Amino acid sequence: MVESYRGKALNLLSKYGAEEGDELVVTLDVMELRGKLMPSYSEDESIIILKLENGYNVGISSEKIRGLRILHKRPIKQERTQPTNQKIGEVKIISTGGTIASKVEYETGAVRPALSTDEILQFVPEMKEVADVSAEVLFSILSEEMKPDYWVKIAEAVKKALDQGARGVVVAHGTDTMAYTAAALSFSLPKLSGPVVMVGSQRSSDRPSSDSAINLMSSIFLAKGSDFGEVVVNMHGESSDTYTLAHRGVRVRKMHTSRRDAFQSVNDLPLAKVWWNERKIEILQKDVRMREDNTEINTGFEDRVFLLKYWPGMRPEIIDHLISSGIRGIIVEGTGLGHTSREFAPYFKRATKEGIFVGMTSQCIFGRVNMNVYNTGRTLMEAGVMPLEDILSEIAIVKLMWILRRETDPTKVRQLMATNLRGEIGSRQTISTYPRWYHG
Amino acid sequence: MVESYRGKALNLLSKYGAEEGDELVVTLDVMELRGKLMPSYSEDESIIILKLENGYNVGISSEKIRGLRILHKRPIKQERTQPTNQKIGEVKIISTGGTIASKVEYETGAVRPALSTDEILQFVPEMKEVADVSAEVLFSILSEEMKPDYWVKIAEAVKKALDQGARGVVVAHGTDTMAYTAAALSFSLPKLSGPVVMVGSQRSSDRPSSDSAINLMSSIFLAKGSDFGEVVVNMHGESSDTYTLAHRGVRVRKMHTSRRDAFQSVNDLPLAKVWWNERKIEILQKDVRMREDNTEINTGFEDRVFLLKYWPGMRPEIIDHLISSGIRGIIVEGTGLGHTSREFAPYFKRATKEGIFVGMTSQCIFGRVNMNVYNTGRTLMEAGVMPLEDILSEIAIVKLMWILRRETDPTKVRQLMATNLRGEIGSRQTISTYPRWYHG
Repeated sequence: MVESYRGKALNLLSKYGAEEGDELVVTLDVMELRGKLMPSYSEDESIIILKLENGYNVGISSEKIRGLRILHKRPIKQERTQPTNQKIGEVKIISTGGTIASKVEYETGAVRPALSTDEILQFVPEMKEVADVSAEVLFSILSEEMKPDYWVKIAEAVKKALDQGARGVVVAHGTDTMAYTAAALSFSLPKLSGPVVMVGSQRSSDRPSSDSAINLMSSIFLAKGSDFGEVVVNMHGESSDTYTLAHRGVRVRKMHTSRRDAFQSVNDLPLAKVWWNERKIEILQKDVRMREDNTEINTGFEDRVFLLKYWPGMRPEIIDHLISSGIRGIIVEGTGLGHTSREFAPYFKRATKEGIFVGMTSQCIFGRVNMNVYNTGRTLMEAGVMPLEDILSEIAIVKLMWILRRETDPTKVRQLMATNLRGEIGSRQTISTYPRWYHG
Repeated sequence: MVESYRGKALNLLSKYGAEEGDELVVTLDVMELRGKLMPSYSEDESIIILKLENGYNVGISSEKIRGLRILHKRPIKQERTQPTNQKIGEVKIISTGGTIASKVEYETGAVRPALSTDEILQFVPEMKEVADVSAEVLFSILSEEMKPDYWVKIAEAVKKALDQGARGVVVAHGTDTMAYTAAALSFSLPKLSGPVVMVGSQRSSDRPSSDSAINLMSSIFLAKGSDFGEVVVNMHGESSDTYTLAHRGVRVRKMHTSRRDAFQSVNDLPLAKVWWNERKIEILQKDVRMREDNTEINTGFEDRVFLLKYWPGMRPEIIDHLISSGIRGIIVEGTGLGHTSREFAPYFKRATKEGIFVGMTSQCIFGRVNMNVYNTGRTLMEAGVMPLEDILSEIAIVKLMWILRRETDPTKVRQLMATNLRGEIGSRQTISTYPRWYHG
């Protein structure tokens, strides 16, 4: 198997019969290098990638390679006879890619999503004790490549799995844009006959600190053992392995680049706390939507939108550009309670007069916009800018993309944006969920 | 004093000799309204604003007013003989506007920044016990109107105050963009002969929960009583009134729209904790820059930059627009460890070939970008995108604006962006400062 190689590198590897995963000794002019042949995603087709014993990957130009021998062939996989295609399990795992779905044996610095159906099922042997699981590889992409069209396909796959009788669905996804996809699924699936649990991994499975297995186990347990009909993101709840937190898909944000407890609920409590080891689910939310008899799908997204983050000195001309580029909606990430410089007011007015939706969120992340407190807010509202309460800007752009595909009348778009559809807007009485900063 | 009125409203008020602050009875067709005349910032020049006894402001068209009488004239101010212009105090307060500098007697829903020098000094009588204070009103603007040109003027005013012998400077500022200004001052003032303490208020002074007085008191105390030579933002440290936290100006972010402890250090400890009531300063940082003999200024900002927040489905054509609009630098707020879709790579490549700086930060806010982990990151780096470590995107855009005004050579711009100039980039060994989320 040398599927990731092309051109000169492929010729060289084929000549020696080397496959990804084989232990090789490569002879160069001045030295020999020993290591495992890794998949290559280099743009340069002459490069082969070797993982050295010290764990480093090196790229070697095949032109510099004078000889190559195979020390050990990669271990042959035991192909298990899987019931995957025969019947739907209690829990269906839909894999879209990302670190959690990356090849365990090949994982290195250059992680690539490549877990097969079979490998997913072999990945965490303990999952068999928790649920009867089936798996499907829908995509193998890193989540930064996620696009609205893929959201549609994931929503369709979720509905299909639930319609086929799965009690719950687990969606394995890269963490980078998992919160956006969670929101997209939330809006696309107004009724669910079972829990939809999105899960990812912050550390790849070849690292001792990996969160892959626990997050996946916990998610399968949650998908089987709970009765809510919502989309959640279920990830490590703290830096140790005690519990995971299932955050509502319309209230969650990746708040750290690398920590395992990166995902956090914002302006809301998580829906549930999962003590994966004790097999205990603690529901933290009071207003959980329960599973329905049937799953409804209503999906599709307008991508002619823009998420505009304000900073002091930003020039308002960008709005005119967006208008002329045919944009249909703008989510402004303003300052504080929902502000930009007043200079922007006539530009926003032109946009809203053209039927473009302009909504205001806050770059503070926590808290609620309130455009009635200062004159600036009022001026912007007079220009047609709509305050979007306590919704996260990232969720607001997904919601807007979803609404614009179903509504063209600006008044109805505004009405829908103002309506709490899936829990994305909280009431003013919600308890404070502002995290505490520790110092020292 | 009817300075805020124009047109018909001004004519009416002048006719009756009414001034802002006067208690009036206004006769309409069907009723009389009693209330205090408020400053107007309505676009409509026929409107007068009255604060009713129940605390609400009403706007009344002067055309509807049949009669008007003054119940009580506004209290005449006791003009104190201020030493303000004669000598510089130990601590100089430079007021730029914002809620903290809003008129106490007039504050209502429609807050406007209007505190005079005299009023600042009368505002917190206890401050006299803490330090000999002088004050200057530099601007009276809400901070969402803050612009790079104003940053320059504030930096110049700070230098002047320190050169004139102030031990420390307090800059009163609106909270919306205070973190951006703090960064701008940090870069503009490479050496400081005393602490520069920025302070704002999340709740206006007429509210029982106002943080104005404590924040100001604490800041004056900190400016007088400490020996660091850095720019900090000093605000409530928690929701009660126990202490304030002085956050380094290049590491701070407004994280909540309305809470008093909205400001938080990100990826770093606060510089100091100030027990304002006990008159105690606890320095939390180990590598504090101390005050120098002289203050150096090096200011000016390039505004042809753009802060681009990525979301799934974003179209890369925006980059071409930015290139053709003459932009000199882009800060990308990417996902996770610093990603966008690979589709963006050729666009970024065109930008960097044109000499445009493209730097990558993370929308996670917490943590550090690392573009070596995934192939996407490497592809973007090959296109010329520079990873910006653990700097906040908001600080990165200010730093870039400052650098681009001093350097045109793209290589030197990159070098400076990679250099930790004022503490804006942390070492990889910094302790974790990720806040803890409480639930339930």
